Amino acid sequence: MSTAAISTTVSPLAPKHVPAMPEIAGVRLATGAAGIKYQGRTDVLLALFDQGTTVAGVLTRSKCPSAPVEWCRAKLKSGKARALVVNSGNANAFTGKSGREAVSFTARLAAQAAGCRPGEVFLASTGVIGEPLKASAFEGVMEGLAQGAAPGRFLDAAKAIMTTDTFPKVATAQAKLGDATVTINGIAKGAGMIAPDMATMLSFVFTDAPIAAPALQALLSDAVADTFNAVTIDGDTSTSDTLLVFATGAAPGAPKISKAGDPKLKAFRAAFGQVLADLSEQIARDGEGARKLVEIIVDGAVSKRSARRIAMSIANSPLVKTALAGEDANWGRVVMAVGKAGEPADRDKLSIWFGETRVAHKGARDPGYDEAAVSNYMKSPEIMLRVTLGLGKGRDRVLTCDLTKEYVAINGDYRS
Amino acid sequence: MSTAAISTTVSPLAPKHVPAMPEIAGVRLATGAAGIKYQGRTDVLLALFDQGTTVAGVLTRSKCPSAPVEWCRAKLKSGKARALVVNSGNANAFTGKSGREAVSFTARLAAQAAGCRPGEVFLASTGVIGEPLKASAFEGVMEGLAQGAAPGRFLDAAKAIMTTDTFPKVATAQAKLGDATVTINGIAKGAGMIAPDMATMLSFVFTDAPIAAPALQALLSDAVADTFNAVTIDGDTSTSDTLLVFATGAAPGAPKISKAGDPKLKAFRAAFGQVLADLSEQIARDGEGARKLVEIIVDGAVSKRSARRIAMSIANSPLVKTALAGEDANWGRVVMAVGKAGEPADRDKLSIWFGETRVAHKGARDPGYDEAAVSNYMKSPEIMLRVTLGLGKGRDRVLTCDLTKEYVAINGDYRS
Repeated sequence: MSTAAISTTVSPLAPKHVPAMPEIAGVRLATGAAGIKYQGRTDVLLALFDQGTTVAGVLTRSKCPSAPVEWCRAKLKSGKARALVVNSGNANAFTGKSGREAVSFTARLAAQAAGCRPGEVFLASTGVIGEPLKASAFEGVMEGLAQGAAPGRFLDAAKAIMTTDTFPKVATAQAKLGDATVTINGIAKGAGMIAPDMATMLSFVFTDAPIAAPALQALLSDAVADTFNAVTIDGDTSTSDTLLVFATGAAPGAPKISKAGDPKLKAFRAAFGQVLADLSEQIARDGEGARKLVEIIVDGAVSKRSARRIAMSIANSPLVKTALAGEDANWGRVVMAVGKAGEPADRDKLSIWFGETRVAHKGARDPGYDEAAVSNYMKSPEIMLRVTLGLGKGRDRVLTCDLTKEYVAINGDYRS
Repeated sequence: MSTAAISTTVSPLAPKHVPAMPEIAGVRLATGAAGIKYQGRTDVLLALFDQGTTVAGVLTRSKCPSAPVEWCRAKLKSGKARALVVNSGNANAFTGKSGREAVSFTARLAAQAAGCRPGEVFLASTGVIGEPLKASAFEGVMEGLAQGAAPGRFLDAAKAIMTTDTFPKVATAQAKLGDATVTINGIAKGAGMIAPDMATMLSFVFTDAPIAAPALQALLSDAVADTFNAVTIDGDTSTSDTLLVFATGAAPGAPKISKAGDPKLKAFRAAFGQVLADLSEQIARDGEGARKLVEIIVDGAVSKRSARRIAMSIANSPLVKTALAGEDANWGRVVMAVGKAGEPADRDKLSIWFGETRVAHKGARDPGYDEAAVSNYMKSPEIMLRVTLGLGKGRDRVLTCDLTKEYVAINGDYRS
């Protein structure tokens, strides 16, 4: 059906600096080429975890989830993980019974190689939808991956899970936990698409902190709200979105944590949030066709929830996004997007800023604003757009990107 | 700020046939050039109605409505109309106090010219947002328009209210009401945009049927649900959307109708629905950059409401719309859009058709489908996409268009 073109042009919004990724005690990684779809590149990642590793996850809310998403949802209940297998090139979504069979076959294969139970293997797939995943392709590589798995290699892992991402996404942070120093590493792939694929957000975070699964889940659910859930490229939600966190507990001397409310977690919580914020921002930076990273801040709303909805209405508006692509400080379209959100808003109390310039105030154009300064600001690769509603104290922030002709080209050009 | 480019290229989806528009007893029209923004074209419409004319309307649900929308909302309560003034070139939206003043000034002007009260004058504006509307421009033309107003001229009226519409939108139908024949004429303008403007849907429908305002409102609210409210271009909602219906009651011999449930209305109701369906379809046909008219049918949903939400999720998905632009029968993205709608759906019961071809069935690709036939079908200018959920009897239909690079160009190109 489609040809799998790996992007050769890196997004102009790619981070200038790629961090060195330290090892995580208790995590070994290996990548290989199973030939699922791509030629000349790796397309499968195997991660092995020491005994005692806990796991937490958030999965797509789609009513039509992929087979691996259903597998993970079921296996997360145990909170235990020994292995993770991720492939790119085929999403194993909308593949019916054969998709479920591919999932259990792959889990058995990995369990055998890792010396664990299939229920301790987590799975994720990204790529073409609706085509059967030939899991037999993993048969030839799994044993070798398990044998070769080694600490480090997080950048290689990030590369193996890319589809049309234009750069691999990694982030790392350290934090004090008791007297010990623990490490948090994350990898992600984002919103690059190849017809007939769809954007899928996959992210995997690894730490050597000893955190019980329920506490890890609470930490994750909390951290995801203002990071991965506050990023939108086009308002479309994949059938495969998966974010899993694995905690090996292998950091020497770290105290065991059983409750998310444990005050010892303060520094860890901050570092964990930072890794998730970093990865999710990189996803916005690699939105298909994106030329601008756009931060939308809404304050003065009746609640944070209301601020989020208004920010998302702005972030997902094609008219706002095309104006941003055109470097046009088109606040009229922002008014439109606020108005259509269905949340409390009073036109005559509304103010809008692009960067430092207030362009609209109390229901009308700000008479004093310097259009040349704003026009100049709109040329920046990173744009901040702020809306003040003047109703309450609700505040929120989302990240998005602009909507360019390249987005349409990437997603609309004829299948070959 | 912006230059006002009138489109010179008519949408390839424009209706091949423009109907001759008959006169409506009790309605007189005039158009003129007030020079609000455009040069060398008409930009103001005055409609005068005989005494006894009733009015009903539906207006944007935006929380940030334009000044004329607020005016109409207030005046609709009386149910009486003697005049309508519509201008293009300036939307009088987000214009603060000066916008409200421009509205009452214009109403007074028209009332004087028409010999009625300002509260019997209805107003609509479309064009630039956030720029004060210089209503004084109407001063020089209003009296002349009132003096020159004459029956017919519906096509001229449709032309005067265009912004970047590529063709004027008119529709007409007749129906028996008792022993009389009544006529329904409608005009509309749609989703063409000029930076920094936004799409505004305006439509005005005129009939000589004698229908009391509450009954007219009920008829309208009912008819709009499956016509104007079932069309989406990009999911964005204007601050100015306005649909008004005027019933003069001047048809000789027609029985006076006071209740929407009156069985005598059967033929009228059908003809009225047909005019609204025709006009709203023309708006989809003139979506900015549109190259395909797309009908999305969802059936087997748990309710009509649920079917509508799923159809809208598909219709507003940038990934579905870009695939349609690329003539790609990308049912994977349809699955995605069904899944994200948040409505009951069972992946393993889902079937998807493009035209007559079932491409996906019961949670997987339909093994028997002829890809060449579908590829050929996707080249048509009119595409039917059907999703069967297999859960219940809920069915709905929406119209949309594809998302092309031209959409991004129209809405994203730099302001001059």
